[in-house]
Amino acid sequence: MSVVKLEQCRERICAELDSVVDFWLKYSHDTVHGGFFTCIGRDGKVYDELKYVWLQGRQVWMYCRLYRTMDRFHKPEILEAAKAGGTFLRRFARVSSSSGQWKCAFCLTRDGKAVKVQRTIFSECFYIMAMDELSRVTDDKDMQLEAEQMMEQLIHWVRVDPSGLGRPQLPGDIPTNSMAVPMMLLCLVQQLTEGRGQEVAQKYSELGSWCVQQILQHIQRGGTAILENVSVDGAELLGCQGRLQNPGHALEAGWFLLRYSADWGDEEIRRTAIEKFVELPYQCGWDKQHSGLFYFLDVDGHCPTQLEWSMKLWWPHCEALIAFLMAYRYTKKPDLLETFLQVYEYTFSHFPDSKNSEWFGYLAQDGKVALDFKGGPFKGFFHVPRCLYMCELLLNDLLAKKD
Amino acid sequence: MSVVKLEQCRERICAELDSVVDFWLKYSHDTVHGGFFTCIGRDGKVYDELKYVWLQGRQVWMYCRLYRTMDRFHKPEILEAAKAGGTFLRRFARVSSSSGQWKCAFCLTRDGKAVKVQRTIFSECFYIMAMDELSRVTDDKDMQLEAEQMMEQLIHWVRVDPSGLGRPQLPGDIPTNSMAVPMMLLCLVQQLTEGRGQEVAQKYSELGSWCVQQILQHIQRGGTAILENVSVDGAELLGCQGRLQNPGHALEAGWFLLRYSADWGDEEIRRTAIEKFVELPYQCGWDKQHSGLFYFLDVDGHCPTQLEWSMKLWWPHCEALIAFLMAYRYTKKPDLLETFLQVYEYTFSHFPDSKNSEWFGYLAQDGKVALDFKGGPFKGFFHVPRCLYMCELLLNDLLAKKD
Repeated sequence: MSVVKLEQCRERICAELDSVVDFWLKYSHDTVHGGFFTCIGRDGKVYDELKYVWLQGRQVWMYCRLYRTMDRFHKPEILEAAKAGGTFLRRFARVSSSSGQWKCAFCLTRDGKAVKVQRTIFSECFYIMAMDELSRVTDDKDMQLEAEQMMEQLIHWVRVDPSGLGRPQLPGDIPTNSMAVPMMLLCLVQQLTEGRGQEVAQKYSELGSWCVQQILQHIQRGGTAILENVSVDGAELLGCQGRLQNPGHALEAGWFLLRYSADWGDEEIRRTAIEKFVELPYQCGWDKQHSGLFYFLDVDGHCPTQLEWSMKLWWPHCEALIAFLMAYRYTKKPDLLETFLQVYEYTFSHFPDSKNSEWFGYLAQDGKVALDFKGGPFKGFFHVPRCLYMCELLLNDLLAKKD
Repeated sequence: MSVVKLEQCRERICAELDSVVDFWLKYSHDTVHGGFFTCIGRDGKVYDELKYVWLQGRQVWMYCRLYRTMDRFHKPEILEAAKAGGTFLRRFARVSSSSGQWKCAFCLTRDGKAVKVQRTIFSECFYIMAMDELSRVTDDKDMQLEAEQMMEQLIHWVRVDPSGLGRPQLPGDIPTNSMAVPMMLLCLVQQLTEGRGQEVAQKYSELGSWCVQQILQHIQRGGTAILENVSVDGAELLGCQGRLQNPGHALEAGWFLLRYSADWGDEEIRRTAIEKFVELPYQCGWDKQHSGLFYFLDVDGHCPTQLEWSMKLWWPHCEALIAFLMAYRYTKKPDLLETFLQVYEYTFSHFPDSKNSEWFGYLAQDGKVALDFKGGPFKGFFHVPRCLYMCELLLNDLLAKKD
């Protein structure tokens, strides 16, 4: 693989990141009520004023991360946008639940009234990510404390008592280990501890190790498959739920595990991460006919019941790019770089909108654009810029070593 | 239009109904735990043992309706299957909610343990439909009373106080008039009153008329569009929710209204039903490029945020067949029959599985099968047989008059 090719990738990725940041700076800021519009059409126009909280939190996080770690984004307008988003979130996202605990809404009106509260932990996760990262650039200790308090609440829901989430206890609804939960918690552990020294690292080390073990439970079928949902004892579950595969999620878990293995110098986790959470989901999840990663699959080859199972979504491709490049960075195995380039070619020839910039999010199986908006209830300023940001850093590192 | 063509349609429809009934009699009965398997693969194999309550109720209703009103289905095995389904439903579907009111589960394990309860009225609706129709064939007065009591509960949730449904009150979640609610209630009014005499008809007449008014509120944009969600005052709502169109739902409402107009001899409702709820959703919802009805559309031409918006689902086509044939039956307008035949050609050339019988439910926009199962969380023994049953009756009626 030539250095020239990697230089070209880096150039494209840098330019793409600049353009994506510009798009959201230009179109998503609500200067009247604060916060960010998240439903943004192909051409940048807002087609719905609802503000999705996952995406508010993610945008604050991403702005701060860029501001804090990349010179060319260390600009007042990015800091101000992040702070305005943080103010909106703190003011409106939290709603007190029937249990008296704090929940975060899933969706708010333009002026901040709660429309919907999910009975899961994810709004709170992105709230924590936002507050922790924002507290790093503003040096706001209260905000950092608030992130840690919300984190305690979250840990309580996941490991002690989920009743505060508001789901009724039903005899047929047995507790499960869903990939998303330990993945998100591991991501938060990495967020809260990064560069904060020994004491904080120690505080969350048991939780980090528990998350890793929970993620590894998803290796099933004698190591031949990653399943999205397993029992709390790590056994396969019955039916569709048990057979479900989500290749993009597995790949995302893959690079979270790689990061963990680097932090702790754990060679065995690194090996497992690459073999089971990077290579395997790609082998199972890549569409041999039309290319691209499927959204959902059934490990026994049944048809998934999710209507969108065969669609090609932007975010699994973002996660695959990070995972393969990071895996290559740690191992220098040429196969991993080759797959990175294959995913890169598919991604950059299908998702970016050359006319209005930013990326389409949803393609039909054959690669045609099926939904043409740039932002929607689950797509915001997050997966695309995080992928470009991570890949730029990894390529800088790789190319510096090659020079 | 030749009588021969309609005779051919009737023949195909009769044969298809026989084959669909056979499919479910053969593959869906759980002789161990009772009730019906609802997740049934292309070839008839059960791929998940979960039992979805909407589909349990609908299957009981459909079996009873066929048993009660069509000679060739007046067979002990159909009656026994319906009774077994009813027993399973009565024993397991009801769960007491936190408010102390009865809710029905959305999904049960094979042996009847509740897995999920929705915070909507629809499981209860199909429970009532099943109990009322079953009480007609078994002459079980207790069961009929139970259906009526559940109906009172439902009316209370919809018209007086929704808090028993379990949704938290949120300041941004303003009450809306969603098409599904008055449609379902109107369907239940028609179910509970059919052939039961003046007193029962009187009891529900105010409710029926209220449902019709609520449905008519969905005529928006100066009569040029049917919108799926409107405010409780009948005004257009902001954003995606307000602009959403669901052509299949509008068409289903259309034939419910036609039936109502026939029961009450209301010419104006008949005219409105045909013009606004039959012709208009077809004009807006038919895909001029690939044929077939879209699942969702945005009245202003934005891209809907539902990932499956452009897919062709079996049930809107079922509803369109009933709606156009019924509209033709009442008016004899040749255009309506022509559209019926166009939808008929698309439907019968795309949905039936010639190899294993029954119908596929989910096609990609271009008409290729996207999900190949015969039963899933929302597809059971209901829309296909109800459509074939209604069309057979309508064609019998039309052809008898032509003879």
